[in-house]
Amino acid sequence: MKENKEFVKEITNIEDDFAKWYTDIVLKAGLADYTDVKGFIAIKPYGFAIWEGIQKYADGKFKEHQVKNLSMPVLIPESLLNKEKEHVEGFAPEVAWVTVGGGETLEERLCVRPTSETIFSTMYAKWLSSWRELPYLYNQWCNVLRWEKETRPFLRSREFLWQEGHTIHETAEEAKKFTLEMLDVYQDVIENLLAIPVLKGEKTPLEKFAGAESTYTVETLMHDGRALQGGTSHYFGQNFTKPFEVKFQNREGKEEYAYQTSWGISTRLIGAVIMAHGDNRGLKLPPRVAPIQAVIVPIAIKKEGVLENADKLYEKLKEEYRVELDRRDQYSPGYKFNDWEMKGVPVRIELGPKDIENHVCVIVRRDTSEKIEVLLDEVERRLGEILEEIQRNMYDTCVKRVQEKTTIAHNLEEFEKNINENQGYVKTMWCGSNECEETIHERTGAKSRCIPFKQEHIGDTCVCCGKPASKMVVWGRQY
Amino acid sequence: MKENKEFVKEITNIEDDFAKWYTDIVLKAGLADYTDVKGFIAIKPYGFAIWEGIQKYADGKFKEHQVKNLSMPVLIPESLLNKEKEHVEGFAPEVAWVTVGGGETLEERLCVRPTSETIFSTMYAKWLSSWRELPYLYNQWCNVLRWEKETRPFLRSREFLWQEGHTIHETAEEAKKFTLEMLDVYQDVIENLLAIPVLKGEKTPLEKFAGAESTYTVETLMHDGRALQGGTSHYFGQNFTKPFEVKFQNREGKEEYAYQTSWGISTRLIGAVIMAHGDNRGLKLPPRVAPIQAVIVPIAIKKEGVLENADKLYEKLKEEYRVELDRRDQYSPGYKFNDWEMKGVPVRIELGPKDIENHVCVIVRRDTSEKIEVLLDEVERRLGEILEEIQRNMYDTCVKRVQEKTTIAHNLEEFEKNINENQGYVKTMWCGSNECEETIHERTGAKSRCIPFKQEHIGDTCVCCGKPASKMVVWGRQY
Repeated sequence: MKENKEFVKEITNIEDDFAKWYTDIVLKAGLADYTDVKGFIAIKPYGFAIWEGIQKYADGKFKEHQVKNLSMPVLIPESLLNKEKEHVEGFAPEVAWVTVGGGETLEERLCVRPTSETIFSTMYAKWLSSWRELPYLYNQWCNVLRWEKETRPFLRSREFLWQEGHTIHETAEEAKKFTLEMLDVYQDVIENLLAIPVLKGEKTPLEKFAGAESTYTVETLMHDGRALQGGTSHYFGQNFTKPFEVKFQNREGKEEYAYQTSWGISTRLIGAVIMAHGDNRGLKLPPRVAPIQAVIVPIAIKKEGVLENADKLYEKLKEEYRVELDRRDQYSPGYKFNDWEMKGVPVRIELGPKDIENHVCVIVRRDTSEKIEVLLDEVERRLGEILEEIQRNMYDTCVKRVQEKTTIAHNLEEFEKNINENQGYVKTMWCGSNECEETIHERTGAKSRCIPFKQEHIGDTCVCCGKPASKMVVWGRQY
Repeated sequence: MKENKEFVKEITNIEDDFAKWYTDIVLKAGLADYTDVKGFIAIKPYGFAIWEGIQKYADGKFKEHQVKNLSMPVLIPESLLNKEKEHVEGFAPEVAWVTVGGGETLEERLCVRPTSETIFSTMYAKWLSSWRELPYLYNQWCNVLRWEKETRPFLRSREFLWQEGHTIHETAEEAKKFTLEMLDVYQDVIENLLAIPVLKGEKTPLEKFAGAESTYTVETLMHDGRALQGGTSHYFGQNFTKPFEVKFQNREGKEEYAYQTSWGISTRLIGAVIMAHGDNRGLKLPPRVAPIQAVIVPIAIKKEGVLENADKLYEKLKEEYRVELDRRDQYSPGYKFNDWEMKGVPVRIELGPKDIENHVCVIVRRDTSEKIEVLLDEVERRLGEILEEIQRNMYDTCVKRVQEKTTIAHNLEEFEKNINENQGYVKTMWCGSNECEETIHERTGAKSRCIPFKQEHIGDTCVCCGKPASKMVVWGRQY
């Protein structure tokens, strides 16, 4: 059996090699594993339970907005993909093609969906006739494929799980409003469930979705100061509804093309949770999404009455919390402590013969290592309070990091210096040109995260070309 | 706007052309639609909501059995598929192959999973080391592809949604027990949620799953007397764990191959619901799985106070039931009645000015057309009772049909006569030989449904060859 120290040694130090630390966590916390096909992972039950938590929470919010789920085909004919020019240019290079089915070469090859705007638009064209039916607010939870060159579990894999919402509306105004409402849902999921603060704004033309009129985003900042896109919501105007002929009879009895949106979050968010909260002892899960919120570790498990009392405690807590009792007798408590810390369980509850005598147990917080002696009579209430404190503290810790790692730059020298020292977000003014954005990326390795909704006046000239600039942009090196 | 009679005329008569009636229901009740790719359907929100109901119920039952969800890759390398001989022979002819990814021809082609025994076995081999970790009780809800020649929405489509559970165990006994426990879950889902009685038993060698040692099934009987396989649960023994080397150190410290099961139900069950319960007025949904359990149709909607009172009723009922208020003012009540009957909503609640005056509403049952006047003060309680009565009545109706359509045959002449007159289940004795089973199929068009767990003594000789026979088999023409 592995002993405490060896166990901890197995993870790469987070400050030494963040990328390797990340992979260690994915594998050793039992979240996912590599498979025989490059870029395809098996999401293990513990990792999948986090995804189920995200699904349940987000799906509930979607339904509050009258969104309904459906299921569209996984295969899309090449001719459909080709209908919207920018879209096909964006996605065609990274799709996987089915060319043989049932032993025969297909007449037209079919791509495994990289995203489903084309198929939704095709079906919407078939279904829609009158303004009375609008809006269509539909979503699907499914898998998609994008043949990336470089792959990393959760962050960039050739297959990933996500939800893709696709809506059509009677007016541009209503569609735009809905685009932003879904962005608010993503903010809610990421901040309130996953305890990660977001930066909200609009993507620049270079960074927007292939075929969108505007892309809105919630951006997050990881432990190492790199940025990760948390979720995006796109307003398409009539970019798809025109080529796909998604039209309806409007209130005036005239034919009109519908106004469209799409929006998605994916299993990437599991990567965000790992990289926003984890530390040298392993994963650290926010209580609200943790598959196991508290684990009871009996001390001196073989002593009379210990396991029995631990079981009583387990039975008492399991009604209200996601709790587990570690009954394994082949491991020492020390080994178990490390094991559950690695798995990021927010709270450990120690219960030994002395505790039982004194009618107490010891609650140990994963986030602060604080030990709290709690009367067994009060444990149900106290556990709830402590879990909420942990949730809040984890969120606050991330907010503090964003504050510390956000700088302002007025010229490219400052920009380079800031990002090389600190990573993080760099705020600058920007003239709005693609050329400046590309120059900045070449010089600094940073990409625009977004044009934040909350604009600040930090200057009047573009950080790159020095010409007059009215927009503040936030930049960062990204995952 | 369409009027009552025309509306009903649009469905093919169920006795005239059952296949066409089925397709009419699928399309006109808004369950699904055809897409541009043959054999691939779009499951529309109303149809998908039925699937969500099945998922929620079944997933809860799986979790009661300690089953955990995970996610395996959608693509399987050809070399993996080839590892188990019977399995590849069973599935290779009907798979879809991805041959190009990211613009390049792949070195090894990858099939879109038709089922995932091979990939589960590969990962289990990687993960498993000791008996202490067993059992693995894992499941995934996902899409699979099988390139069928003839396709029909829900019943036989090239893509379908399902769950596939894959477990490994320390002993053969435990694995066999679990196989049957999952079959019990399927019985529970189909009988208690979908109100369709099942026939439980073991598949004959000819009908079992490619690579399985035994396949167990829950069979159902449709309105037209044809059989539909509702769900199957397979015991593999070590058929996969040996070629895939899924082994563990057993309690004696020796290496041993694990014992395996798999089990699945799919969106086919939506087809079963349509064909078991539907009638000439459309779909008929069992209340427990109906996305809308009751619809309130205001009578004289424009009269003062009607919509207001309907709204009050809606607000009162929606806490406890899945209820909808039909606010559309462009349709007559008659049109709406037909519309909701077509969609199979179990209960319609009519509320007009007279009703409001008398503090009552009228509940109309979809299954019996019975009209029940109910005091508005009692409607919450009464609605629940009536929904349960409908659920029970729909189940009982199916039980009666099975009884009426089940016959016994002692020789092939009787068999042919029975099945030509009646379709339905035909019970016979069977000697156990593949040859007799094939002869029966050629002569009668029927396939063995199963060797029922509940055996009856109906003779001593095989219905086909006349040799001594100890097994009773149930046969039927199938979907």
